[in-house]
Amino acid sequence: MHGPIFGEFLGTLVLIMLGDGVVANVLLKGSKGENSGWIVITTGWGLAVLAGIITSVGVGGVAHLNPAVTLAAAVTGGDFSNVVPFIAAQMVGAFCGGALVWLIYLPHWAGTESQGLKLAVFCTGPAIRNIPSNALTEFLVTIALVVIGFAIGSKGFAGAGLPGGLGPYFWGMLVWGIGLSLGGPTGYAINPARDLGPRIAHAVLPIAGKGDSDWGYALVPVLAPAAGGIVGALICKATGIA
Amino acid sequence: MHGPIFGEFLGTLVLIMLGDGVVANVLLKGSKGENSGWIVITTGWGLAVLAGIITSVGVGGVAHLNPAVTLAAAVTGGDFSNVVPFIAAQMVGAFCGGALVWLIYLPHWAGTESQGLKLAVFCTGPAIRNIPSNALTEFLVTIALVVIGFAIGSKGFAGAGLPGGLGPYFWGMLVWGIGLSLGGPTGYAINPARDLGPRIAHAVLPIAGKGDSDWGYALVPVLAPAAGGIVGALICKATGIA
Amino acid sequence: MHGPIFGEFLGTLVLIMLGDGVVANVLLKGSKGENSGWIVITTGWGLAVLAGIITSVGVGGVAHLNPAVTLAAAVTGGDFSNVVPFIAAQMVGAFCGGALVWLIYLPHWAGTESQGLKLAVFCTGPAIRNIPSNALTEFLVTIALVVIGFAIGSKGFAGAGLPGGLGPYFWGMLVWGIGLSLGGPTGYAINPARDLGPRIAHAVLPIAGKGDSDWGYALVPVLAPAAGGIVGALICKATGIA
Amino acid sequence: MHGPIFGEFLGTLVLIMLGDGVVANVLLKGSKGENSGWIVITTGWGLAVLAGIITSVGVGGVAHLNPAVTLAAAVTGGDFSNVVPFIAAQMVGAFCGGALVWLIYLPHWAGTESQGLKLAVFCTGPAIRNIPSNALTEFLVTIALVVIGFAIGSKGFAGAGLPGGLGPYFWGMLVWGIGLSLGGPTGYAINPARDLGPRIAHAVLPIAGKGDSDWGYALVPVLAPAAGGIVGALICKATGIA
Repeated sequence: MHGPIFGEFLGTLVLIMLGDGVVANVLLKGSKGENSGWIVITTGWGLAVLAGIITSVGVGGVAHLNPAVTLAAAVTGGDFSNVVPFIAAQMVGAFCGGALVWLIYLPHWAGTESQGLKLAVFCTGPAIRNIPSNALTEFLVTIALVVIGFAIGSKGFAGAGLPGGLGPYFWGMLVWGIGLSLGGPTGYAINPARDLGPRIAHAVLPIAGKGDSDWGYALVPVLAPAAGGIVGALICKATGIA
Repeated sequence: MHGPIFGEFLGTLVLIMLGDGVVANVLLKGSKGENSGWIVITTGWGLAVLAGIITSVGVGGVAHLNPAVTLAAAVTGGDFSNVVPFIAAQMVGAFCGGALVWLIYLPHWAGTESQGLKLAVFCTGPAIRNIPSNALTEFLVTIALVVIGFAIGSKGFAGAGLPGGLGPYFWGMLVWGIGLSLGGPTGYAINPARDLGPRIAHAVLPIAGKGDSDWGYALVPVLAPAAGGIVGALICKATGIA
Repeated sequence: MHGPIFGEFLGTLVLIMLGDGVVANVLLKGSKGENSGWIVITTGWGLAVLAGIITSVGVGGVAHLNPAVTLAAAVTGGDFSNVVPFIAAQMVGAFCGGALVWLIYLPHWAGTESQGLKLAVFCTGPAIRNIPSNALTEFLVTIALVVIGFAIGSKGFAGAGLPGGLGPYFWGMLVWGIGLSLGGPTGYAINPARDLGPRIAHAVLPIAGKGDSDWGYALVPVLAPAAGGIVGALICKATGIA
Repeated sequence: MHGPIFGEFLGTLVLIMLGDGVVANVLLKGSKGENSGWIVITTGWGLAVLAGIITSVGVGGVAHLNPAVTLAAAVTGGDFSNVVPFIAAQMVGAFCGGALVWLIYLPHWAGTESQGLKLAVFCTGPAIRNIPSNALTEFLVTIALVVIGFAIGSKGFAGAGLPGGLGPYFWGMLVWGIGLSLGGPTGYAINPARDLGPRIAHAVLPIAGKGDSDWGYALVPVLAPAAGGIVGALICKATGIA
């Protein structure tokens, strides 16, 4: 159990265990972090990214942890051989991360009345449902993720002497900032695996008192971030970032 | 699309997209971060500075992202050739960043009743309107920004072995701290482009239910930070910081 | 007073003084941080970890500060000679840290009516009491701590050029993130010394108006983290992290 | 204007301008950060420490910024020649920093009714007034500041390859953590200049509607931190930290 594909699996598992975990803490009834707000959710997700990258690299991975990033890396590098295995590993990892959140918060599901809050632990939903606008938001924010994120590793920035470990740290800070600033309309999926993997976990796990998995929205946080990753990569190529 | 002028454009765009974005998240009706408070706004702006600098450097820029900083650098370096093109690029970038916030938060404008809150997403306004006092605040806080910020890059501090990437990080921490501590009276524009560019965006974009753009205050966050940048630069020269 | 065993004592003392201290600040009547919430508690604990590690290393220690980590290091390294002296030193340090919190917050105990809040300053308790579920949570979260934490020091991650000081910093960020995300059900003991040492302090110190020390729960945050440390170490070995 | 004594002046000025500034933002009527809580106050103070150190080092200083630290450094180094000039410069800098906060928040003093809140912007006061207990808290917390802080610069920790800039950063994190965890009973002066300098500023400046400067408490945050600095230095010597 080592190498890039396993690294995508384990890193994404850690990302979702901590990322969906912070949503569980804030939303589930009786949790010690109940109602602790947006600063807790976004800080938790930023640190989840850092932890996921560290874990992925620690087992020999390259830590994309996001199909949009894998697509963007394929476009900038001109090599699509990783796309299918990486995305598959990310999806399985995201599913397992969601399942672990279910286990870790096991006593809290029955007492949480709202089915919507329980679903929100696992996957995103829009603040105001408007599919074209929601898709536009996810598309633009994923472009921002890829362009700024790839700038971290660019010749101009990292090439000027960024120490080991600061790249993953800055990716964590970036997702912290994106969540704080641009997560308001759709909850910033910006990652097809982050949304679809745990949504499937929600659908198949015996979560006490759960409702439906809102499949009517499920394609938005898959397709829009995928498109955003590709467009972001093209911007990176046009601007010398990658 | 590469180099210093493009870097001022793209970096300032990122700065304002994330910076005005966090204000939108906290102020706009129904947003997931609604009413999440000053810690969210200031953390978001600090991370916006870090992301803007990374992006600017990634495309070959030098990441002033602020006419007050460009003026200060001209004064300390004795070379004013960058002033006009950099400030123009910063203004256009800030306008575009504001426009992106309008698009990313598109479904939220109609439901937000307060015209004042909608304007506050784009540009600053004083807590207590008193033009001489407000100008004094912006003047003094911009001096603090320039003196402390230039100390980050000084021979004494950075020259003692600051690793690559920590300079931009410390600029982000500095703006985080300035916002937390000194943003109370005027909302810390401390950057003429940060305020004027998005104010123009507010004036020309078809934002649902918007009011006027408060042009009566618009000169304060332009002229006072510009003066503060110049005085800050003189302090840097007098103290050996630059 | 120098070297690894003293380092475990002093580092754990600092960890608990700051960690239990932040709980005191949030829970005790009249404290300046009263009711300041989960973001304060988790940030305080994350910084407590960083401060404890720095102190331990500063006196010649290796900064486990946690019997679960000592057990995990013994399993991955195949050397159990440190287990007994390190755990003993951690327990004594944790007791002393708890006692210091009692002294530092001395005027606040009498005015705090709730005996449960006073106990919560010293040791953890579950949000919903369900011993098997609570043990499962502590077990899984300690595995996460060990796997991600050891990935920080892994050949793949730290071996790629992590600068001195960033390892301890990332351990602090990790505990910050774990608290934010996974601390909801049980208050994240994930460290037998963190829980048992201060629980004994609560039992023996003359705290004004204290109640019982909830010994019925005391084994959960001791045994489950110990088991999690061992299983986490086995995962580290199986995945090449250690 | 350069060198160690000027560095103590300017660094302490920045420390207090940002540190007292964040208290003004949270406490003064109508400020944009009004009532934003303990997380804002402590984060602001932590970043104030980082900014003060950067500025001090940038003008050729060594960045004690605190008479307790100057005393501790004199004890560990056996050289008391800096004590008088450094402490004098710190006091003048702290006074000027407080005066700048008064100017930056100028329109907010008249509208703030509570004289106690206005005083609290400038200097500390206990949550529960009990002079021996308050002094004990300030004494113990200053010991923690000196021991952990000097461990940052110790042979064991910094000597293992801490990059330039991370030392000041960790001092900022340390004060952030100390505030979060141990600031509850007395508001963590832990620095005679931080308290006395701005208290004098409060006494002499024409602050609208101010009350008395609580001189009955003024010796506690001067003498207890001074004693804590000396005892902390002795612990550093006994443990090999310094």
